[in-house]
Amino acid sequence: MASNQTSQPVELLLSVTRGGRMRLGAQIEDQLRCAIRKGAAKPGTRIPSTRDLARQIGVSRHVVVEAYAQLATEGYLSLRQGAPPRVSDALSVTGETHGSRPSSPPAPRFDFRPSMPDVSAFPRTAWLRAMREAITTIPDADLQYGDPAGVEALQSSLSSYLGRVRGVVADPARVVVTSGYTQSLALVCRALAARGSSRVAFEDPTDTEYPQIASRAGLEPVSVPVDDDGLQVDRLARTGAEAVVVTPAHQHPTGAVLSGERRAALLRWLREHDAVAIEDDYDAEYRYDRGAIGSLQGLEPDRVVYAGSASKTLAPALRLGWLVLPPRLLESVRQEKMRADHGSARIQQRALASFLERGDLDRHLRRMRARYRTRRDLLVDELARAIPGATVRGIAAGLHLTVELPAHYDEPTLLAEAAARRVAFNTMRDYRTDADPSPPLLMLGYGQISESSIHAGVREIAEAINAATSPRTGGARPGATTGGGAR
Amino acid sequence: MASNQTSQPVELLLSVTRGGRMRLGAQIEDQLRCAIRKGAAKPGTRIPSTRDLARQIGVSRHVVVEAYAQLATEGYLSLRQGAPPRVSDALSVTGETHGSRPSSPPAPRFDFRPSMPDVSAFPRTAWLRAMREAITTIPDADLQYGDPAGVEALQSSLSSYLGRVRGVVADPARVVVTSGYTQSLALVCRALAARGSSRVAFEDPTDTEYPQIASRAGLEPVSVPVDDDGLQVDRLARTGAEAVVVTPAHQHPTGAVLSGERRAALLRWLREHDAVAIEDDYDAEYRYDRGAIGSLQGLEPDRVVYAGSASKTLAPALRLGWLVLPPRLLESVRQEKMRADHGSARIQQRALASFLERGDLDRHLRRMRARYRTRRDLLVDELARAIPGATVRGIAAGLHLTVELPAHYDEPTLLAEAAARRVAFNTMRDYRTDADPSPPLLMLGYGQISESSIHAGVREIAEAINAATSPRTGGARPGATTGGGAR
Repeated sequence: MASNQTSQPVELLLSVTRGGRMRLGAQIEDQLRCAIRKGAAKPGTRIPSTRDLARQIGVSRHVVVEAYAQLATEGYLSLRQGAPPRVSDALSVTGETHGSRPSSPPAPRFDFRPSMPDVSAFPRTAWLRAMREAITTIPDADLQYGDPAGVEALQSSLSSYLGRVRGVVADPARVVVTSGYTQSLALVCRALAARGSSRVAFEDPTDTEYPQIASRAGLEPVSVPVDDDGLQVDRLARTGAEAVVVTPAHQHPTGAVLSGERRAALLRWLREHDAVAIEDDYDAEYRYDRGAIGSLQGLEPDRVVYAGSASKTLAPALRLGWLVLPPRLLESVRQEKMRADHGSARIQQRALASFLERGDLDRHLRRMRARYRTRRDLLVDELARAIPGATVRGIAAGLHLTVELPAHYDEPTLLAEAAARRVAFNTMRDYRTDADPSPPLLMLGYGQISESSIHAGVREIAEAINAATSPRTGGARPGATTGGGAR
Repeated sequence: MASNQTSQPVELLLSVTRGGRMRLGAQIEDQLRCAIRKGAAKPGTRIPSTRDLARQIGVSRHVVVEAYAQLATEGYLSLRQGAPPRVSDALSVTGETHGSRPSSPPAPRFDFRPSMPDVSAFPRTAWLRAMREAITTIPDADLQYGDPAGVEALQSSLSSYLGRVRGVVADPARVVVTSGYTQSLALVCRALAARGSSRVAFEDPTDTEYPQIASRAGLEPVSVPVDDDGLQVDRLARTGAEAVVVTPAHQHPTGAVLSGERRAALLRWLREHDAVAIEDDYDAEYRYDRGAIGSLQGLEPDRVVYAGSASKTLAPALRLGWLVLPPRLLESVRQEKMRADHGSARIQQRALASFLERGDLDRHLRRMRARYRTRRDLLVDELARAIPGATVRGIAAGLHLTVELPAHYDEPTLLAEAAARRVAFNTMRDYRTDADPSPPLLMLGYGQISESSIHAGVREIAEAINAATSPRTGGARPGATTGGGAR
């Protein structure tokens, strides 16, 4: 183990060219990435300090700092306060065979993909404390299989957290802990199918992955359009659906809020048709202009399934989600969870319970709200400056903006231009199943991009837009780095 | 430490309307009262200070002070000089009943259920160390969704562990990390169905849960009997199955080992029919008389899916399993994992990687093998003493014994007598789908029962057997505490 801990860093043969098409930082990133991938710099290897490398290749230290930060974000480097920079230990791919592993596309330089939280702020210390408590105090009996619905400590903490923050009426016994929203939706769809339901409505636009989940569970997914007041509830009755998946607090992805009238109409529809709503409360913790709107579930707990997760608030990697279920679905969803995987990892469930009980999530969210709000404001300002006439739609909430462009652009060209600049974002078309003739709506996330990169990133987007309207659009390269916002 | 004493107030979802019929203070009172009555704010929960709430909802502090005072008078809140305001501890009315939680049956006095490891020996200290390393070193990029197949660090550690201990041929890129064997089997069955397979063979006896998993994935499960040499491979060809699930190292639950001849025949069948075997290597780490038999997968890695988990070696509660896949199934299983839950919890994956790398699993298994072997020997001795003529079948391996009783007993009476004595075990009938006229085979696990309880537990079993043959069998009570061995 000590063999890697050399007192001298390895020497890296790097050089930069000034005045070329590629900025200095990007050149450093490319060469380091390549050296690590090829195995020239092995996992755990110490690399030059930012000061040394800057001196060595004759660039300002700031350029190297930024390049290292980017590579750390991508997982190539490990940077710790007070320790020398190293090639990340986690990297096991050092050039060799690994034949069948799909090679990942180059990481974007400016990552505006929506639905991704800022995991660099993941509260490692608090999570470790919670995990320590869980590992040292979990009763032996809880280390066996146990109730597939979850450990009682977490059911109970979630019950009080969701009641307090989201107005959810959640008897702990109605909580089923899952591995995130994707699994939650699959479990509920299977339970609905088992009860004899045959059709479920989804908002349009939506994450296209979700109707597919319903379909695989044996339900027929149907679409109901969304406008500025959210789901067009009056069109729900015509679909013949027995259930509907909604995002009432903050429509995903348009950012609309289900209006008061529509809420009332939706509740009426639920009662008149004895139907079920699945409330996807995916990012309600992030509202910047006022307090969040209470959950729909709180108004009709016997007909609304509440679904939440830790993916947006803490980290997707935790794979922790939860459902609060009406009595009619509780037992069948519990059975489906049993069949899927016999319940979620139980030590981690207790860690989340302890994390909630200590108020650590509240503290983390306060910090993150301030951070995201600043980024959002900055992004709105930069867009106004760089793309005159662009309109930001939706409420001040969540982790992304929906931006309407002032004129009609050719979307494939715009995407190719953005990809060539390694700027990643989504457009509304990624959330629609049908061909949509309207002009592109950009979905710009600010969860992952640092404040210092927003200015330059928006400038790149503006240039991509210009290139997509100029006569030189033939130069655009294919292979957009945009991607669906997984959850 | 005072875990609830956060330095920041908790958040409550309150809002007020100006100019309405109700004064502001009354609105606050109503909403808080309602939240407390419904159980949304639980007894003892800290609520915002008057100053914070006033700022949050935009009213003068005086209004909130008055409202809190009113609620304290009514007994909802507890206000103490110098302490943060809380929901009163004295309140017993927290809304809904906890009616729907299924009440668990009384715990057995003697727990001989098979398939359950001794979790009281779970290596908490080593696991905490691994978890600390994972939490402090996981790269930010790995806190996002990432590859649904798993984190590279774990794929790589499992690859070398399985190669070393089980002779598995496992390129890290062929490893898919899952949430345990139940999920592993479901993913593979779905991938087989997607490839056009229609029939999969299972050993008989088997966990009856498994053919159901295949069935839900759209495959037709068929049965192939097991004898003392394991699966009767010659009968496989007649089933028309395109895949087979086998436990070659230690048949579950009979304890037979697939003979050398049958292994060769199975490999021939795989090649001739271009079929797939799913090798369920559920407890191969526990062999007491000699080294474990190498995996089948090592002999035919392009036609055998290897499936393992941490449930028997560490704890079922971890919900960690893994698959090593032939190229033909790799990508589709990866896709199925994505659809199921976007991958398993990633910090925990890194913790297991670190645990394996440090040799902690090897150390733990050495300790556990010695412990289980002692218990197994003791159980065999006690059975010989208390139930003369009882025969222990199968090899010296795993976490349970298969015991053939010397005479024919009425199984329902035996189970009722055992339940009345709160002795839990399974019988072979729990693993068969068809009615089987043969005498009961007891499945006695020694994973959970302490050495000191084995003597008394076996005596109770002997008495239950006696009672099941005496003329007084009418006294037996129903409700056996036996249960299937979940995985």
